[in-house]
Amino acid sequence: MQTTQTPGRLLTAMRAKNPLVQNITNFVAMNIAANVMLAAGASPAMVHTKEEAGEFARIASALTINIGTLSPDFLAGMKEAAKAAGEAGKPWVLDPVAHFATAYRRAAVADLMKLKPTIVRGNASEIIALAGSQSSGHGVDSGDPTEAAEGSAITLARQSGSIVAVTGEVDFVTDGQHSVRIMGGSALMPRITALGCSLTCLVGAFAAANPERPFEATAAALAMFAVAGEEAAISAAGPGSFLPLFLDRLATLSPETLDTKARIVSA
Amino acid sequence: MQTTQTPGRLLTAMRAKNPLVQNITNFVAMNIAANVMLAAGASPAMVHTKEEAGEFARIASALTINIGTLSPDFLAGMKEAAKAAGEAGKPWVLDPVAHFATAYRRAAVADLMKLKPTIVRGNASEIIALAGSQSSGHGVDSGDPTEAAEGSAITLARQSGSIVAVTGEVDFVTDGQHSVRIMGGSALMPRITALGCSLTCLVGAFAAANPERPFEATAAALAMFAVAGEEAAISAAGPGSFLPLFLDRLATLSPETLDTKARIVSA
Amino acid sequence: MQTTQTPGRLLTAMRAKNPLVQNITNFVAMNIAANVMLAAGASPAMVHTKEEAGEFARIASALTINIGTLSPDFLAGMKEAAKAAGEAGKPWVLDPVAHFATAYRRAAVADLMKLKPTIVRGNASEIIALAGSQSSGHGVDSGDPTEAAEGSAITLARQSGSIVAVTGEVDFVTDGQHSVRIMGGSALMPRITALGCSLTCLVGAFAAANPERPFEATAAALAMFAVAGEEAAISAAGPGSFLPLFLDRLATLSPETLDTKARIVSA
Repeated sequence: MQTTQTPGRLLTAMRAKNPLVQNITNFVAMNIAANVMLAAGASPAMVHTKEEAGEFARIASALTINIGTLSPDFLAGMKEAAKAAGEAGKPWVLDPVAHFATAYRRAAVADLMKLKPTIVRGNASEIIALAGSQSSGHGVDSGDPTEAAEGSAITLARQSGSIVAVTGEVDFVTDGQHSVRIMGGSALMPRITALGCSLTCLVGAFAAANPERPFEATAAALAMFAVAGEEAAISAAGPGSFLPLFLDRLATLSPETLDTKARIVSA
Repeated sequence: MQTTQTPGRLLTAMRAKNPLVQNITNFVAMNIAANVMLAAGASPAMVHTKEEAGEFARIASALTINIGTLSPDFLAGMKEAAKAAGEAGKPWVLDPVAHFATAYRRAAVADLMKLKPTIVRGNASEIIALAGSQSSGHGVDSGDPTEAAEGSAITLARQSGSIVAVTGEVDFVTDGQHSVRIMGGSALMPRITALGCSLTCLVGAFAAANPERPFEATAAALAMFAVAGEEAAISAAGPGSFLPLFLDRLATLSPETLDTKARIVSA
Repeated sequence: MQTTQTPGRLLTAMRAKNPLVQNITNFVAMNIAANVMLAAGASPAMVHTKEEAGEFARIASALTINIGTLSPDFLAGMKEAAKAAGEAGKPWVLDPVAHFATAYRRAAVADLMKLKPTIVRGNASEIIALAGSQSSGHGVDSGDPTEAAEGSAITLARQSGSIVAVTGEVDFVTDGQHSVRIMGGSALMPRITALGCSLTCLVGAFAAANPERPFEATAAALAMFAVAGEEAAISAAGPGSFLPLFLDRLATLSPETLDTKARIVSA
């Protein structure tokens, strides 16, 4: 990665700023996403209704939107917030959960993409479908490996102007020109609900504190998740015991350890 | 239980299929229910809005509906989904949380019962009230022991054509003709919120993978909960430490151990 | 504190009554708040929609309202429930989360204050802003120390007739005439989401069982949180491992230990 900023330095910047990040996410993720952000060093706020979502987006340092449990009321708030974030030059992240599953979801994501997210984070099936290709995804889980989505991610990044992150066993981040792969994590992580959604929120926190470097901020957030997940899995007996260990590790992970253990390679 | 399928075989079938189950459940339960399903081996999707709930029910292998935090928007989605599941021949499970508490809740459950759930799971107070008898329930918790609800469960099963499961210190499952009792679990389980709601979702997963055997699928899901709960309680110091242990045990419980430890007896 | 009731006795009364408490709280808090209440010995019910919120408030022994993830539908239910609780003479608690952040939130809290909450619980920034002073709060977290809010709390208690509780590193409770400070807790507690929201619900449980003593009930709930938090932190390696330990400690804390360890001093 051509950069003068290591993941550890970006983590230090994030913790120093303790950025207020507005998350319009799904009901399954709200609690764990807030705990992930607090543990890592950010300040989450779940504010979604259209009566205040736009006003709040102007106060917050970044916005994340996740369509997991979409409804018309939430979608209206998402659009208000995304517009306000865009106008105010704040970074915002879109997580197009299972957008290919229904007509309602496809239309919602098409509308949100028009509002030009700074970053799109999804699993392989979601990114493949978003780039217009066929996916084997059958629901909220990914049916495709990350590698199968790399071409789609690059296409999507070029079409949309967004940074695109595909997460899975291996993660992939691209701006359409440069790309990196990030290794790490644990096979337990897909067995705990909403960790991907929580990662979307953490990407928002890193982007909030490093708004000039959304590509590197995204890679740093993914690397933090991968390192903390890898270490938490060492002592975990299953998905239940993994989660407290993972939150502890997010809270205690030092920038130096992150730099030592992060495996980010140019693609 | 007159059957050629043991709980362990039904668990094997569930994990092999990794069924996509749509859950329209309450806000308290969404996260833990998803974690219970992922740990046990199913693929949960929380999709509720009427704009897509029916379309999604045709994709999913089963549907579960829980009225815990009911509202008009959710109720509209529930009806769309239950109709679609019924038309598509997919099993669906109803959890009539505290339906006796208010007029709004009573009317909602009456409407949902008309859509003929494959399985109804509730606590003793809920099943007694649903069968038209008096209950001592005062809220969301059960004020009646399971044994007091066995007659009501049989009556309700005969009236409705649904499999009826009453869960508590002892569980009871009936199709109106045959009945079983399931022993196990832990006194800690009622001290953790939404475990009953999560069990409803797990029943949906077993029914999704074993749609021809909803009675045995229900009993198998209850037995899995009872065995995992009993084992998790051994090392738990309270309700907080119970939950991670319980999720770990759901993930690691083998079909062989389930068959050895399940205590299902004809009633 | 001029009282013949110790926190331990109020805890005994709460557990003996196992009060049904209606909580209209935010989506982030619903699960953890229910678990906190179940662990401590109360019976939580999350019932929010205007179609039943008022009817349910007449059944429940107390009501708590938290505007964390406010929306018009929830606000309508909150007003119905608060009116019903007031008419029925049931105690109710208001948690004005980040009410200063947006115009929508400010107006909602102004309306709810007119319905005369028995108790208001907030962080320093929220109480300062509610008393009409300037606050440095920038989001959902408190930017002010508790001490800076003591004068505002007294002013607000006198203006509103409510008991006012400010929670933070040190807690402060006042009825406008008498005040106490409560010490304890852990620096880990602000790193776990929705613990303050959960404390609001626990205050409701203590007030439900001790409706003639809302001041002492509030102080007792805060002392229980402080003692359990302090003890849980001893074995915690971070925010993730803190939470199960904290719930265990709420469940196992005896009235005698609470009386021995509670640090409540007249202010």
